[in-house]
Amino acid sequence: MSAYQQLEEHFEQVSRLGEVLAVLRWDNAAMMPTGGAEARSEQVAMLQGMRHELLTEPAVSDLLDSAEEEADELGDWQRANLREMRRNWLHANCVPAGLVRQLSRKGSKCETVWRSARADDDFERLEPHLQEVLDLVREVATIKGDAFDTTPYDALLDRYEPGISSEQIDAIFGGLAGFIPGFLEEVLEYQRRRPETIRPEGPFEQPRQKQLAEEMMAAFGFDFDHGRLDSSHHPFCGGYPEDVRLTTFYNEDNFLRATMAVLHETGHALYSRGLPVDWRRQPVGKARGMAVHESQSLFVEMQIGRSKAFSQWAAPLYRNAFDGQGDAWSADNLYRLNTTVERSLIRVDADEVTYPAHVILRYRLEKAMIGGELVVQDLPQAWNEGMEELVGVVPDSHRDGCMQDIHWMDGTFGYFPTYTLGALIAAQLYDSATEAVGDVDDAIANGEFAPLLHWLEEHIHSVGCRLETDDLLEEATGHQLDATHFKNHLRERYLGRE
Amino acid sequence: MSAYQQLEEHFEQVSRLGEVLAVLRWDNAAMMPTGGAEARSEQVAMLQGMRHELLTEPAVSDLLDSAEEEADELGDWQRANLREMRRNWLHANCVPAGLVRQLSRKGSKCETVWRSARADDDFERLEPHLQEVLDLVREVATIKGDAFDTTPYDALLDRYEPGISSEQIDAIFGGLAGFIPGFLEEVLEYQRRRPETIRPEGPFEQPRQKQLAEEMMAAFGFDFDHGRLDSSHHPFCGGYPEDVRLTTFYNEDNFLRATMAVLHETGHALYSRGLPVDWRRQPVGKARGMAVHESQSLFVEMQIGRSKAFSQWAAPLYRNAFDGQGDAWSADNLYRLNTTVERSLIRVDADEVTYPAHVILRYRLEKAMIGGELVVQDLPQAWNEGMEELVGVVPDSHRDGCMQDIHWMDGTFGYFPTYTLGALIAAQLYDSATEAVGDVDDAIANGEFAPLLHWLEEHIHSVGCRLETDDLLEEATGHQLDATHFKNHLRERYLGRE
Repeated sequence: MSAYQQLEEHFEQVSRLGEVLAVLRWDNAAMMPTGGAEARSEQVAMLQGMRHELLTEPAVSDLLDSAEEEADELGDWQRANLREMRRNWLHANCVPAGLVRQLSRKGSKCETVWRSARADDDFERLEPHLQEVLDLVREVATIKGDAFDTTPYDALLDRYEPGISSEQIDAIFGGLAGFIPGFLEEVLEYQRRRPETIRPEGPFEQPRQKQLAEEMMAAFGFDFDHGRLDSSHHPFCGGYPEDVRLTTFYNEDNFLRATMAVLHETGHALYSRGLPVDWRRQPVGKARGMAVHESQSLFVEMQIGRSKAFSQWAAPLYRNAFDGQGDAWSADNLYRLNTTVERSLIRVDADEVTYPAHVILRYRLEKAMIGGELVVQDLPQAWNEGMEELVGVVPDSHRDGCMQDIHWMDGTFGYFPTYTLGALIAAQLYDSATEAVGDVDDAIANGEFAPLLHWLEEHIHSVGCRLETDDLLEEATGHQLDATHFKNHLRERYLGRE
Repeated sequence: MSAYQQLEEHFEQVSRLGEVLAVLRWDNAAMMPTGGAEARSEQVAMLQGMRHELLTEPAVSDLLDSAEEEADELGDWQRANLREMRRNWLHANCVPAGLVRQLSRKGSKCETVWRSARADDDFERLEPHLQEVLDLVREVATIKGDAFDTTPYDALLDRYEPGISSEQIDAIFGGLAGFIPGFLEEVLEYQRRRPETIRPEGPFEQPRQKQLAEEMMAAFGFDFDHGRLDSSHHPFCGGYPEDVRLTTFYNEDNFLRATMAVLHETGHALYSRGLPVDWRRQPVGKARGMAVHESQSLFVEMQIGRSKAFSQWAAPLYRNAFDGQGDAWSADNLYRLNTTVERSLIRVDADEVTYPAHVILRYRLEKAMIGGELVVQDLPQAWNEGMEELVGVVPDSHRDGCMQDIHWMDGTFGYFPTYTLGALIAAQLYDSATEAVGDVDDAIANGEFAPLLHWLEEHIHSVGCRLETDDLLEEATGHQLDATHFKNHLRERYLGRE
């Protein structure tokens, strides 16, 4: 067996351990009774340890070297696979095991403190723990920066969306930061003039919401022989290509929340299902990165699901599911409900227009923290100033301010920008897709999503990690990541031109 | 660290891998969409392989030797733990890996053939595959017999209920085989004279059946913070002590089936929950064996759940759950429904009286097959003769005859007797428990099961594998396994003296 073939066998096992972890994670969130938590975390730690051991076996290093020497004999997919193997290997091997363990321990501790400190709105209690986590992440970032020959922050980014640099993000986010505040004014002014939005009155029974959600998933081609829908506190998409596990959260007063969340997760699910079948258990057969993943969920939720045409298709389904009658159930009103914009404090509840502002704030702050220009102690003030500038509101508590997100608590720095990069990619892909398949509004209004989804499958899903993000976008859309599409999309939708 | 301590660490990891496998097995049966089957079986094979590797690491052999030399320094639990480690190790190590793999492959193949051949009632198609499996199992049994210094068949038994010999079983089953046919005549005669049994008319909605089942589980002290109830094609109890996963199967025409199945699985669950907390991740902290496990499920289902007193408690619950009215819903009628006896062909549907006859038949046949006195070709005839003798009916198809069970197909020989041993143990324990806690009929009729269950917890659950089966029974009941209790129980219940 060649070195490359041995690596394929090895990484297949890494992949299968990942699948088992995915089942456990889903079970944790959707099924597990509370008393199982401790045993579960031991199981997960054990399997993660095994996976790490597989990735750090000394033989792998030699095999990578040998395979790279013989790379000329490999095909395109294999070469790309080898590149991704090396990337995974580097992430797993460049940081000393002791430091990884320390960060994992401190991260768990900080997360626990955060849960109670956040409830008490007590930033002072959190601060030393978060500073400890930050210090360790900075150490990791420095080491990874050396290994990847990039800046410390860019090395963190590489973990979540390989191949997008902070230089690129700075330029894009800078433009958006200039655009959003003024645009938001315009949107709010426009909204004041449009017809009043009426909220349908619940309660909306959970089984009916679920049935409707499953109908919509089916309309998007979700295959229930290869996945299922359950509920959990936070909606997510887990599992693996043959068995995709979606969850949503049902709010009995507002069926649109669960519906839109399900569309979002369906976008993730279709990406997973569409990954290249022959490469599913190899690094090259995985999703490109979190930004591209988010682009798929936002393509389905934002580009399609919150469009005017989609409301035309969905309104009768909603009326039918909940015996809805009257103006609140008109397609126009449901569309207005799905596209209401407001200045708000909480990222996860933010609308499509203000969401990027929340993300840009976090990006600036985490980059400054990793760069050593901002210490945790000064975070609340920086947070509030940023909110004032970007969203135009200032939280009156830490809980609704810099303590709202879990990410930094367990050391997840470099992830936030992927949300907004995903939104930009989604808009860019949508423009190319509609250009390719022709006007889609009528199709969407008829519940025919296949043309758009096939385009995605061909240009994104089935590519896996064969291309790096830049090249993937270039091949799919003819040009590099560009915020113009997203801005045009916002202008059209939120100034009443959709 | 002493050799013994190192072994504890090692076996803890074996145990945790077993937990992960338990979650996957549950998910398989209760949650997984069909399209996930192939990926799942690869995951399971990988984890089983890892567990086997842990058990066969050369270092373990040395550690066991060292620890056994220093056994004087260990406490009771530790010494028993070491004994069980050695047993597990011996089962994993004595058979060459190649033979294990061969049996696993042939077993899978035979099971697949069986599924279709059974549907077509085609024994000839199955025969060569089953003979191949049998030949391999005989090879394994011979090797294990040498390793455990016992007969080949007894070495197979040891895998499922260590410490009960075929000599013991021969004596007990011989007595039962003499008892059942005549007793069955008496019971059928008695039943002809009792009031007509009326079947409540459905359909009985599944959500109501589930709610009722959960009420009953709660009455038996099942802790829903440490477990859950779902549905699957075959009811089972999976998971591990902190997170016990029960399933049942709902029949909309017959709510007693799901109810009794849930009581059965609840008995298994309480055993799992009651295992010694400090030893949960060690061999000594596991359930004693399949016969003792079955005794716990039958204690709850048969001894308590199908008693007259239980029907008195349950009848109003049933009436309430399904708006039941009239004679069909009386405690007496429900009791008769739960204790109806008939000559029938299928083991899994058999009643308490004829079930042992089905098991004794299988025990005789599998012992003869392992002993080389019966070849697969002659199985149908031997089956039918045995059915005639023991149950008094003869199947007119292989499907309802020797092809009905899955056990032998994948090489599971030595398991069948545990069902009936469990029934005998349950009756013996019930006599001792009621002797200890006083008359329980009133308590059961009031839904108070705690005194009996506490007795079980103290004498069985919390002992884990500290004692071998014989000693466990001796300590709990004052004497060895003895079929008298079971026969008395049958006479009392099925001849109208309960």
